[in-house]
Order: sequence, then C-alpha cells, then structure tokens
Amino acid sequence: MTVEMIFVGTELLLGNIVNTNARFLSEQCASLGLSVYYQTVVGDNEERLQSILETARERADILLIGGGLGPTEDDMTKETVAKVLGRNLVMDEGSKAHIETYFKGREDAIPENNWKQAMVMEGCTILENANGTAPGLIVETENCRVILLPGPPNELIPMFTDQVRPYLQGLTEEIIVSTMVKVCGIGESQAELMIRDLIDTQDNPTIATYAKTGEVHLRVTARAADEESARGLIGPVVEELQNRFGDNIYTLDENETLEEAVVSLLRNYGLTITTAESCTGGLTGSRLVNVAGASDVYRMGFITYCDEAKHQILHVRQETLDTHTAVSGEAAGEMAEGGAKEAGADVCVAITGYAGPGGGTEDCPAGTVFVSCYAAGEIQTDRLQLSGNRNKIREMATVRALDLARRCILKQYGDR
Amino acid sequence: MTVEMIFVGTELLLGNIVNTNARFLSEQCASLGLSVYYQTVVGDNEERLQSILETARERADILLIGGGLGPTEDDMTKETVAKVLGRNLVMDEGSKAHIETYFKGREDAIPENNWKQAMVMEGCTILENANGTAPGLIVETENCRVILLPGPPNELIPMFTDQVRPYLQGLTEEIIVSTMVKVCGIGESQAELMIRDLIDTQDNPTIATYAKTGEVHLRVTARAADEESARGLIGPVVEELQNRFGDNIYTLDENETLEEAVVSLLRNYGLTITTAESCTGGLTGSRLVNVAGASDVYRMGFITYCDEAKHQILHVRQETLDTHTAVSGEAAGEMAEGGAKEAGADVCVAITGYAGPGGGTEDCPAGTVFVSCYAAGEIQTDRLQLSGNRNKIREMATVRALDLARRCILKQYGDR
Repeated sequence: MTVEMIFVGTELLLGNIVNTNARFLSEQCASLGLSVYYQTVVGDNEERLQSILETARERADILLIGGGLGPTEDDMTKETVAKVLGRNLVMDEGSKAHIETYFKGREDAIPENNWKQAMVMEGCTILENANGTAPGLIVETENCRVILLPGPPNELIPMFTDQVRPYLQGLTEEIIVSTMVKVCGIGESQAELMIRDLIDTQDNPTIATYAKTGEVHLRVTARAADEESARGLIGPVVEELQNRFGDNIYTLDENETLEEAVVSLLRNYGLTITTAESCTGGLTGSRLVNVAGASDVYRMGFITYCDEAKHQILHVRQETLDTHTAVSGEAAGEMAEGGAKEAGADVCVAITGYAGPGGGTEDCPAGTVFVSCYAAGEIQTDRLQLSGNRNKIREMATVRALDLARRCILKQYGDR
Repeated sequence: MTVEMIFVGTELLLGNIVNTNARFLSEQCASLGLSVYYQTVVGDNEERLQSILETARERADILLIGGGLGPTEDDMTKETVAKVLGRNLVMDEGSKAHIETYFKGREDAIPENNWKQAMVMEGCTILENANGTAPGLIVETENCRVILLPGPPNELIPMFTDQVRPYLQGLTEEIIVSTMVKVCGIGESQAELMIRDLIDTQDNPTIATYAKTGEVHLRVTARAADEESARGLIGPVVEELQNRFGDNIYTLDENETLEEAVVSLLRNYGLTITTAESCTGGLTGSRLVNVAGASDVYRMGFITYCDEAKHQILHVRQETLDTHTAVSGEAAGEMAEGGAKEAGADVCVAITGYAGPGGGTEDCPAGTVFVSCYAAGEIQTDRLQLSGNRNKIREMATVRALDLARRCILKQYGDR
C-alpha cells in the first residue's frame, strides 16, 4: 500500500518551523511496511490545498494529512477535504463535550471559533485528542483512506501512536523487518562500490545506504508472512555485509551511535577513556558525554588548543613541537600518551590538525588531521586528509577519532 | 515571483533524516520577498520525480531542487531534470578538475562513479561546491528558472548563501532589505508577547520570528524602490526592538553566531577565555574553537566530568563538593575561578548540571544546570531549568554559557 503525506501550514513555507512531523510519520510508515511516495507542504490556502488533495487521492491508498485543524479562520483542512470528498460536516457531540472539558477550570471563556473544531465529516471515525481540542478523523472512501491529524507534534505523535498505528497495522498482511548495519571509516561511494553486486540483484531483502558525517548506514529490509521468516531472509545478507566490511562495522543496533558503541566497549572491558583535543576543541569529549551514564568510563578531558597547553598539560616534548610542529603524527602520539597518564585513564584519543580555512603548510594543508590513540602501552596514529568547511572537518575528525579508539580497544583488549 | 521546492531522497520518505533544508531555503526565500507555494519531497524514483517536475515547472517561476546529485546510481535528479527540460548532459572540465582536486592526497583512487557528478546541462550556470564534489546548476527556461542544489546541508547552505541568493536578488525589481536581530536568553513565546503590538500592526517592514536552540532571531524586512529607502524603513523598527530587548540582543549581523560575537568581543578588549565544563563535556570549547582564528583568544579548556577532576584540575574545594554537590552554584563559581587561574585566562565560563534523563535530586531535578562566569575578579552564576532530551539540554546550556560570558565581558570591560 502506498502513502502520501500532506502538511498544511504557511509557517512551514516561511521556514518558521522544521517539519519534524514528516520525519516521524515517515519512519512510522517505513516500520509498518507502507511505501511513502510523496510528502507535500502547502500553505493555508484553499485552492492550492484542494489541487493537491485531488491529485493525491488518485495516486495513493492512504492520505496522511497534518495541520490546519485549529480554531482560526486560517485553518481550513477539514473543510477542504470535506469539499473534495463530497462529505457534509456535522457537529460531533463527543468532540463538543471534550472541548468543554478541556476549557473547564480555565479562567477564560471558550472562544466562539473553537466550536468549529467539533465539526466532523459524516461517516468518519473520530480520533480523540488527549493533548488539544482538535479531534483527528479517518474517512474511508472507495479508493483511498484519508486520515486527518492535528499539526502540533505533541498532539500528532500520541494520536498517531495510540490510534492510527494500530489502525494501519490492521490493514497490512505482510510483516516488515529491518536491520541497520552501521559502517565507519569508508566513504559512501566506496561502500556502494563494495556492495554494488548485492544492490543490483536485490529484491527481498533490499539494502538501502545512508550517508552520515563520517559514517555510512546500510538498512537491510525484508518482507514476509511472519517475523521469523523475515529475519530468516535478513540473516544471510547481514552476514555477507559483515564479511565485506569486517571491523568497519561498529554496530548492528539501529539505535546505537558510534560514541555509544565506544562507551559500551569500554564498559565491557572495565576501561576508562580520556580525550586530548586541539582542532576539535572538545567535540570528541562532548560526544562521549552525550552517552547517558558516560561517567562510568569518562572522567575528564583536555582541550589543548595552543602549543604551550600541549606541552604543559599533556607533556608533549618541546623538541617535538619545534621539530615536527603541533600538527604531526609525533605530537598526536605524545598527546595521546600524555593525556592517558595525566588523567590516569586506560585509553586516550588525541586529535590535532588544521581545520581551515586558514593555516596549514605545504606538507600539511588545511584539512590535515592526525588522530592518535593510546591503549595498553601502544600508540596508533592515523593521518587524515579531510575536506569541507571548518565545522565539517572537525566533525569528521571526531568520528574518525572515536572509530580509532573503538578499533584500538578491540585490538588491545578484544581477546582478553 | 513564486517558488516551488522539490527535495529528492528516499531517506526523507523513510524518515531517516529531518528535512532541515526545507526550513533553511524557505526562510531565505521569505527574506528575499519570494512566495513559496509548495514544497514536495519525492524519492529516488525517476517516474515520480518526472511527474512532480512537470507539474511544478508549469506553476512556479522558480524551482529550487535539493538532493539527488550524488555519485551513486540512486542519484538521478540531474538526469531527470535534463530529460524534462530537453537538455543534453555534457562533461564540465572545471567540475572534473574540482573532483580531481577533492580526491587529491587521499589514499584511495577516485571511484569511477564520481565522474557522473561532473556532467552538467548544456547552457546552464555552474555553482561551485566548496564542500563536496557535486556542482549545483542554474538552468533558465522560458517560463521557469530551475536551480539544482546538493542535498547535504553543509554543501547546500554555503552554495545557496554565496551563489544562489545573489542570483535571486538580481531577479526582483523591488529592493528587499532585511536586518536580523538575534536575541538570547528569552524564549520564543515570551519574545513574541513582548512585540505582539508591533507584529499585529506590521505591514512594511515586517517582523518574522524564528526559534533557534536557546535563541530567537527576529528578521525585519522592508521593500522599497531602492536600498536607502528600505534601510530608512528598517531603522526605526530595529531601534524599537533594541529598546525592548536591550542587552538580550547579541548582534544585528545576520552571519554572526553567538560564539563569533563572544570571540569578537574578547579580541576587541584584548582578552583571553577558557572553559571549564562538566555536563556539556567540551561542547562550549568546541563552539569557540569553531570560530576561525579563535586561537587569539582561546588557548585551552578543561572537561572535568567527575568530581575528582573538578577538585584536582580546577581546585574546587572538597568541602564545596561535599556540602553542595558538584551541581551547585557554589561549585560552578569555583570551577569558573579555578579554570581562569589554571589557564591564565582573563575570563572563564563554567557549566555543571544534570543533563538527564537520569540523575538529579529533589532540589535539582534533571535539566538543572548552573552556568558561571569569572571575569575581572567577579563571578556571576545563573541557575537554569532546561527541558528536552540530553543533547538539547547540553546545547541549551552551552548557548546560555556563551551568552553569560558575553554579558560579563560587556559588564566588566565594556566601559573601559
């Protein structure tokens, strides 16, 4: 079954707010095995909304419409849908009572225009709104099911989760299961080349690739009559991806981030980590700290932006700074070792480089970054040549530093 | 002139990412006086993209198309637009050379499929991509101008700002001038209440409000026959906003970020700053370092996540930690003072709090954050009660910490 989404609101067309409802509903539909073909945003304008509705009801099995159910004159979604579907609007006594209850106890009287929200289409199913006054509606027509939802996310999300999702689940026969394979240290183009043959011949399951900053995520999705059969189809494909990407895969858990994978590894081996950052200025530390419960493994970190701080705090030798400069594999290695000792941590990841746009030398142009990891007495240092603006280079460097830490921990402690 | 936006990417229809480009481009169009009537999201599917393009080019003066310019087989925006417009694709030597430069110095060879990105439509204007390999394109047809932009925001935003915006500005007869008033430390609802009378009676200039994390941006836009007249209309409105928001306004420069305002102030007064962070784990340092040339004012920072680090590195007294805990105004103040002394910096901003979801006490529940600033021997500490998920709380805390630093610098050094 195919789904089309329509979001109604001039505030979206003016860029006042981000359309987070689109993402939420799309993710929900994907997990239900429903194919979303189009999302359209249109303003509070009857003519344009009508034109979109007429096109959409011809090409989709399910229409999900968000917004424009409010009490003001601008809000015209329900009226326009009723017109297009040729349905009358009638007062719903239940919705009217709900509005009365909602305003009860408030000092202000019920604004006259709020009663408009209790009008519903003849023959529809009413969706209760626990967090506002506008009810949602489901209207079933011969070719298309039309579902109207209020725009505010704190009303739309619970209404969808509690009432619309079970309704949609009842419509599908097949089960859809997917697994996310998260890869680090390989670019999107390169990753796709490595599995081109799998993608070219895919049918069920399918493999979809998503480029993230410094990462590539591969979603393997299967359809089957039941969950066990779907998982049976996914298994061999995931195994093949593991053969091809090896330890570039950091997790098979959709919800696990790279920093969570690192924190989880550290916790498993009973280790602590620290960070010694120059050009990333604390970004790596902040990502580790973003993991709830990071305090078990991360106790402190160092931002050593100038040379003197690298020398004084991390004990990078003055000779190293003089001979090789602070942007060198030698300095990165000493930062990692010094950071670990200074913090009394088992592992230390260090980052130094030229984030640009200025700086850099002939040998080390802007975008040159050294990431180094100290673990169990050994130091591993990678030289990276990154491109993009200052922020992108710093984010990429942070991802590569976290990934290096992950690999070093696995290498040094993985077999113990 | 009317604008229609088309975003191409199955990842949007699957809900893998939020469409932040839609918001950015819509805000930009609004500031240019261009009316956006529709935004459509379509997957990486030639037939459906073609159908949308054919409808859109008939009803809009300008088509802004984002995404689908990547190197993989999925990426088909350029090819489909060329087909609909009846244009040939030819190799652009400049774009080819750019791709070669982009991959230069990398160990891996240029993947064969990347050359596809150097193909452009005959007779188009090429938009250079400083942050990636896909060039943007502008194609002018009889009734419609079609603009293709790469999907990743870090490529789309600078390309639009530097190249597309000036192009669009050149198309309109009226001059549109706008000034951005950036406010920190006041919520969006509160800010709107404070200027409700101005918004209700606005005509030319208009005031639009945009909520950002921890900030509210107010765009004052005027239309006039020439720039001087437009600026004449804007002037008194901006002055009125300055009267109402006072020192909550941190800049009138559209392109200046909060951290840039702080770095610029420090540079003006010849001061240095350091950071002492607990729950933000380096996020504040990393924002300061993201300002090009930050090394003039920022030399080092401290991430003191555990209590011992606060005591050992920042010299927070053990008694303070025992009596008040590390999440207290007292601890925050000592962190700020200790950080400044340890780094030999003129100013130090410190952050400690419960970012949640766990942690917190009855008196200080999750979301309680103390930000403190040491400047010229004085310490100012603010207690914040923030809400949202862990990352949002940390980002809000960072914004408020930077804003506190800005105010303290102004207070202590502003009259000198």
